[in-house]
Amino acid sequence: MGNLDTLIQDLVIANRILARKEVVDAYGHVSVRHRENPNRFLIARSLAPELVGPDDIVELDLDGQPVRDEHRSLYLERFIHAAIFAARPDVMAVVHAHAEDTLPFGIAQEAKLRPVIHSGSFIGTEVPVWDIADNFGDTNLLVTNMEQGRDLAKCVGGNSVALMRGHGFAAAAPTLIEVVRASVYLPRNARALMRAKQLGGPIKYLSSGEIAARNRGYSPYSVETWRAWEYWAKKAGCGHMLTRPNDGQSHVANR
Amino acid sequence: MGNLDTLIQDLVIANRILARKEVVDAYGHVSVRHRENPNRFLIARSLAPELVGPDDIVELDLDGQPVRDEHRSLYLERFIHAAIFAARPDVMAVVHAHAEDTLPFGIAQEAKLRPVIHSGSFIGTEVPVWDIADNFGDTNLLVTNMEQGRDLAKCVGGNSVALMRGHGFAAAAPTLIEVVRASVYLPRNARALMRAKQLGGPIKYLSSGEIAARNRGYSPYSVETWRAWEYWAKKAGCGHMLTRPNDGQSHVANR
Amino acid sequence: MGNLDTLIQDLVIANRILARKEVVDAYGHVSVRHRENPNRFLIARSLAPELVGPDDIVELDLDGQPVRDEHRSLYLERFIHAAIFAARPDVMAVVHAHAEDTLPFGIAQEAKLRPVIHSGSFIGTEVPVWDIADNFGDTNLLVTNMEQGRDLAKCVGGNSVALMRGHGFAAAAPTLIEVVRASVYLPRNARALMRAKQLGGPIKYLSSGEIAARNRGYSPYSVETWRAWEYWAKKAGCGHMLTRPNDGQSHVANR
Amino acid sequence: MGNLDTLIQDLVIANRILARKEVVDAYGHVSVRHRENPNRFLIARSLAPELVGPDDIVELDLDGQPVRDEHRSLYLERFIHAAIFAARPDVMAVVHAHAEDTLPFGIAQEAKLRPVIHSGSFIGTEVPVWDIADNFGDTNLLVTNMEQGRDLAKCVGGNSVALMRGHGFAAAAPTLIEVVRASVYLPRNARALMRAKQLGGPIKYLSSGEIAARNRGYSPYSVETWRAWEYWAKKAGCGHMLTRPNDGQSHVANR
Repeated sequence: MGNLDTLIQDLVIANRILARKEVVDAYGHVSVRHRENPNRFLIARSLAPELVGPDDIVELDLDGQPVRDEHRSLYLERFIHAAIFAARPDVMAVVHAHAEDTLPFGIAQEAKLRPVIHSGSFIGTEVPVWDIADNFGDTNLLVTNMEQGRDLAKCVGGNSVALMRGHGFAAAAPTLIEVVRASVYLPRNARALMRAKQLGGPIKYLSSGEIAARNRGYSPYSVETWRAWEYWAKKAGCGHMLTRPNDGQSHVANR
Repeated sequence: MGNLDTLIQDLVIANRILARKEVVDAYGHVSVRHRENPNRFLIARSLAPELVGPDDIVELDLDGQPVRDEHRSLYLERFIHAAIFAARPDVMAVVHAHAEDTLPFGIAQEAKLRPVIHSGSFIGTEVPVWDIADNFGDTNLLVTNMEQGRDLAKCVGGNSVALMRGHGFAAAAPTLIEVVRASVYLPRNARALMRAKQLGGPIKYLSSGEIAARNRGYSPYSVETWRAWEYWAKKAGCGHMLTRPNDGQSHVANR
Repeated sequence: MGNLDTLIQDLVIANRILARKEVVDAYGHVSVRHRENPNRFLIARSLAPELVGPDDIVELDLDGQPVRDEHRSLYLERFIHAAIFAARPDVMAVVHAHAEDTLPFGIAQEAKLRPVIHSGSFIGTEVPVWDIADNFGDTNLLVTNMEQGRDLAKCVGGNSVALMRGHGFAAAAPTLIEVVRASVYLPRNARALMRAKQLGGPIKYLSSGEIAARNRGYSPYSVETWRAWEYWAKKAGCGHMLTRPNDGQSHVANR
Repeated sequence: MGNLDTLIQDLVIANRILARKEVVDAYGHVSVRHRENPNRFLIARSLAPELVGPDDIVELDLDGQPVRDEHRSLYLERFIHAAIFAARPDVMAVVHAHAEDTLPFGIAQEAKLRPVIHSGSFIGTEVPVWDIADNFGDTNLLVTNMEQGRDLAKCVGGNSVALMRGHGFAAAAPTLIEVVRASVYLPRNARALMRAKQLGGPIKYLSSGEIAARNRGYSPYSVETWRAWEYWAKKAGCGHMLTRPNDGQSHVANR
């Protein structure tokens, strides 16, 4: 199987995992940068992520336009992905989603979302909140053009995640596996922090040294990370699509 | 398939989606106005929504009475639907349900339920709370006659949703798809607001300009709205019933 | 099918519904008084309720002892049932369970559990809290003899439900259907009240007039109550066991 | 079936139950001490617990090293198990997991986690919180060597459970069944306590006399404990693996 086919299959797996983990439902999307051409990225046509298959993946440029004739509908908010890929050469994968437990931190902005659990370290020391109203006034809250996308990308800056007020979040990472992990653990970290705050007293956040130590040691294809990816893919019903991209070998476990 | 048959199938889908989304359980109901005769509406006979099929749909008039001989039991609270259809010619579909996370806002009335998430814009700027005790004293809290139904409809007024104290909510919309969306996103918006309040500090609600902007751009058969309807119907096990009513063409996806 | 067989099947259905609704898990039990002999009641042998079938039902006397030779293990806490049936001739069915969302109100006793939702009216105006430590000191918290059972029954008094501190609840009702409903709606009412309290401001409880109005109009075999029983039984996988006991006719819906 | 085979099957069941109960997901592990050689213990190779089968079980020594040639990857944090088995001859089984609802008590440490429900008595009167930063500074929070494992074991001391700040918990017990029970009921007890605190007013914890009374009467192979183990194993899809270890007889129920 060629490189591009493998990438497309991984993107399908990412779609299914995010659906299974309830990070996305009818809405929300995940994309991955093209390996040969960094000015292009892959994303599904307008479809609920759980229903996405390889034939639903389309190739867009960094203005969010399809590089081939495409008669099928595209995600309205594909500009989120285009603008982040354009602003951040280090980013290879992007998620936009509405995961419910991230929403309160965008709505009650005095409460900063920061990592409190080890798996939350992927979200970084800072999680900025982007409010579309600041620069665009009264909108339908959706990111529907490049100008809005670039404004959001500016807010993301060098961070891994930005919350979007009253809407959801955008996450960016150096690999597909990492962006899925960040998207799965972001709401989990949010719940742990919400509940810790309800218990009262001082909160012990991860220190910046701990976040750095976790990132230093992190490899997306380590045994530990692959263990989760493989398990989540199986739970999402697409264990048969698994390929370990760094060596081209299939590591589908036999159970 | 005729117009009426299509409408009945859509109503069955709406029943199943609301059950799958846990907006209704053994109780709660959804109705749609008759297309040819605006003085009639369609609703299931007394049955848990998840079990409803085309043969369970009955036709009632705006007093909540069956237009044909009907020996089967009807919903006790069908007067909610009759009264709202009578009061609001613009309304084509109504839901009454007890979705759990909407209840606290009817019980602790100082906390107003207002949209804080973009998908919550459908509930409108105001969500009045109707208390049956105000005009009817000590009842079993159910809306069991037209007088009570009309009192509730008056409280709904020109809004999309009214909470019913200690009981649930009534939602009204120009299409079946919109009333289902409002019913699905109402508890989601309620949870986001409850949790944001627990975090403390000021809450950023949707502005009235944002609510207006969202409603302006909204079309129940847009690609984006249809994407959710199609996905939810498939998850509810009735993807095979899908018909896109505005063009008469079937858009059942092949996956 | 004879009267006793029907009663046993209904008791099996009750076990399965309570498991499906997560009122019971490995622990918790439901019993029903014998129809011909009011000094006996039926309950499962020691078994997780979801696994209970007709052959697992045993007959006990009002001291909690089996009326026939029984080599199989019995529930340790069967004395809860025996004592309530002995103290309350009006009671025909009893549930004891640990439903998680009822526990906080037994632990933080300043917050009284009272009905706030219409379906919570079955729990009555007062929900006393029984603390086994008051009269028995340091125990394992289980009700393992008649003396403890009688003490609990005294606390239940003429009410429908008593919470048991750090343990769960006991519910008593005139029919099996009603005791199952009370057990399903008790945690739901508890959640609605907890969340309303978190929202702040005054709480609107059901008035005693409303509770009375609901009880007055209540019939366990009304169309509305049966609708839930039938639906819950089907969801619990035992729709085929349904019999409508008041007329001897099977009302198993054909879907 | 030999003693060791039975133990391995029980360990597989424990893995599956913990996955089904959402105590573990892709991460987290359970181990049991070898019966003939107390200086060894059994644990799965690096694999999500839900996927573990008998062939995935490996034998490690009390330094966390495999006693046989092993080319497969091992859990990074196996030193948690090794160090607790080394420090506590009375402990026969250990769990390490990240169960979400235990996390807030490690993050907001002023709120002590203590038993408030009868099934929470297994966690003991004290639940110390271990913070890896206290002695090891900025780490990735994982216990990746014996020195860290010993430090954690010292914090566990003679207790049954220690929380690990921002990470999860470690539980130790005299049998596999007990360590699984403690791990299942720990988050349940945490939720009950969190919600009771939100209700306000004084909290009634289990008294130390009650905890002692429960432990005194406890037998891991009593009818009551076995009832849960059997039920949980069936729900986890491995009812066919059940063996009652104290008598060598199979007690697989016929339903």
